[in-house]
Amino acid sequence: MSGAAEFDIIKKYFSQSRQRDDVYLGVGDDCALLQPPAGKQQVVTIDTLVSGVHFPEGLTSAADIAYKTAAVNLSDIAAMGAKPAWAMLALTLPQVDADWLQEFSTSLLKVLMDYGVQLVGGDTTQGPLAISLQLTGFVEPGQAMQRNQALPGDRIYVSGSLGDAALGLSMLKNHDAKNISSMCLQRLNRPMPRVELGLLAAECCRCAIDISDGLLADLGHIIQASQCGATIYTDRLPVSDAFMQYYTDKGQQPDYSYPLQGGDDYELCLTVNAAQEDRLIKCAEITGVRLSCIGSIDQQNGLRLVSSDGTVQTVEAKGFQHFQG
Amino acid sequence: MSGAAEFDIIKKYFSQSRQRDDVYLGVGDDCALLQPPAGKQQVVTIDTLVSGVHFPEGLTSAADIAYKTAAVNLSDIAAMGAKPAWAMLALTLPQVDADWLQEFSTSLLKVLMDYGVQLVGGDTTQGPLAISLQLTGFVEPGQAMQRNQALPGDRIYVSGSLGDAALGLSMLKNHDAKNISSMCLQRLNRPMPRVELGLLAAECCRCAIDISDGLLADLGHIIQASQCGATIYTDRLPVSDAFMQYYTDKGQQPDYSYPLQGGDDYELCLTVNAAQEDRLIKCAEITGVRLSCIGSIDQQNGLRLVSSDGTVQTVEAKGFQHFQG
Repeated sequence: MSGAAEFDIIKKYFSQSRQRDDVYLGVGDDCALLQPPAGKQQVVTIDTLVSGVHFPEGLTSAADIAYKTAAVNLSDIAAMGAKPAWAMLALTLPQVDADWLQEFSTSLLKVLMDYGVQLVGGDTTQGPLAISLQLTGFVEPGQAMQRNQALPGDRIYVSGSLGDAALGLSMLKNHDAKNISSMCLQRLNRPMPRVELGLLAAECCRCAIDISDGLLADLGHIIQASQCGATIYTDRLPVSDAFMQYYTDKGQQPDYSYPLQGGDDYELCLTVNAAQEDRLIKCAEITGVRLSCIGSIDQQNGLRLVSSDGTVQTVEAKGFQHFQG
Repeated sequence: MSGAAEFDIIKKYFSQSRQRDDVYLGVGDDCALLQPPAGKQQVVTIDTLVSGVHFPEGLTSAADIAYKTAAVNLSDIAAMGAKPAWAMLALTLPQVDADWLQEFSTSLLKVLMDYGVQLVGGDTTQGPLAISLQLTGFVEPGQAMQRNQALPGDRIYVSGSLGDAALGLSMLKNHDAKNISSMCLQRLNRPMPRVELGLLAAECCRCAIDISDGLLADLGHIIQASQCGATIYTDRLPVSDAFMQYYTDKGQQPDYSYPLQGGDDYELCLTVNAAQEDRLIKCAEITGVRLSCIGSIDQQNGLRLVSSDGTVQTVEAKGFQHFQG
């Protein structure tokens, strides 16, 4: 296909009818032309999903891939406590498949619109399937939550439940068809970015991260950046009913490596000063998102895991393997 | 490599010592945190380079790939007449090769710094080699040049010379070692984004595009978006001495399909009202960039090519083939 036709892919599939007031020129010129809101700070993120690495090849629909691409980026914006606004897409495709593109673009534009985001530009290229999405959001000056702002004494909270996505992926990879929980698959393919919770939490929390690589890895980023340590109580880890049911059905003990080390949950991990704890709990009530206190930030470096019997174990911050080579 | 190690790739290779005042938080959190300048409009672009499509596999150094990734995006910013500010990188790599990464990052950060740009964030993933770069720039409100603003009577100008990069690529692909002009290769691998020219030209031009897909294709975008036509004089097309020399040495007539249809030159094509023409010529003098008037915008739709003997030919807007399938 020619350059003119490539131009048409973006135009044809990714032009949005709904326009944000701050988008003067969207898809179709060398650049998009935008008006950032006065007096706000801007947060930006970019994430790439590669076929066979971030989603199993041939086992994920175009709609799910598009949804997840948007969700993982929205989750980064949520972790900063910002309001998402604009998106840019870099789409690399093996060939032009009209059905795939239609399904992908419909899903992408839908989820972006659900969060008030307009796709303002993009680039399509030929190559092995990969999708990069860049997102911009806005936040009141000084209010962005940062991973280097945890303080000893802070309580550690996580949203939703952990481990479902990793369990879902494991079932998918092992063709564990009988036991594939649609809930776990849903969590793997359609993680829910906690944008509203992040926006509210930023008023009482100074530190957050989204759990993409697994709780231990991402909490590891917090304590490394904040130069402190943390203690986590295993029996406080929020797991879903579907997660528990899976093990009950198998007559096995739950495998807590999923909620501790499994990636792809895209829940928020927040730390909050004890004096602000009630305000954070109110944020959970307002948004209807489950929020669980799983431990606290310590002066002492390192990550400690307390089992239900009280044994304390120092653990390494390990998570999802991005590079498998 | 683990998530923590992936985090380290960005940290290790892409953290910049030089900081822009408007970057509060760069590489290393869920998002970068930035302060857009008050009262400006923002232009944004994203471009992907895929190995084997945008540069010949194994024949392009990491430094050249990095340079070109930055240059093609800077060229988009230049075509809007904006001042580049921030970059975000999405890098997909087959494996972690420390030497390659060192060479790539040194080159990327160098060219970005040369244009006053800070890399504020990124994502590294495993997969077939591809690089997406997103750039943000700023422009005075109402001053961005747009491809839909050409008007009948406007003179059409192009910067620099055309066809060198396409000739260089052809020589490279045909292993035409004896005749490989280092100048043409330089133009292919190290195109010069016309940022300074774009910034100045925006004060007197309303319409511009950068020539990435070939003059005919990109001028085709202008006349399509502006709902008008254009006439181009073949003998006014600016070609380099190296380009002419190549054909002289071969005893052949120059192949004008390169300057007309060859991609990758990243020169600017600008249209200017006749009353503003002198101001544009001054921009060329100030920046030291060659600027050639190659024709004019017409009321009548279509693209007309006038040969040196006066024959007029209506041509199709065709350029570089992005999708080769």
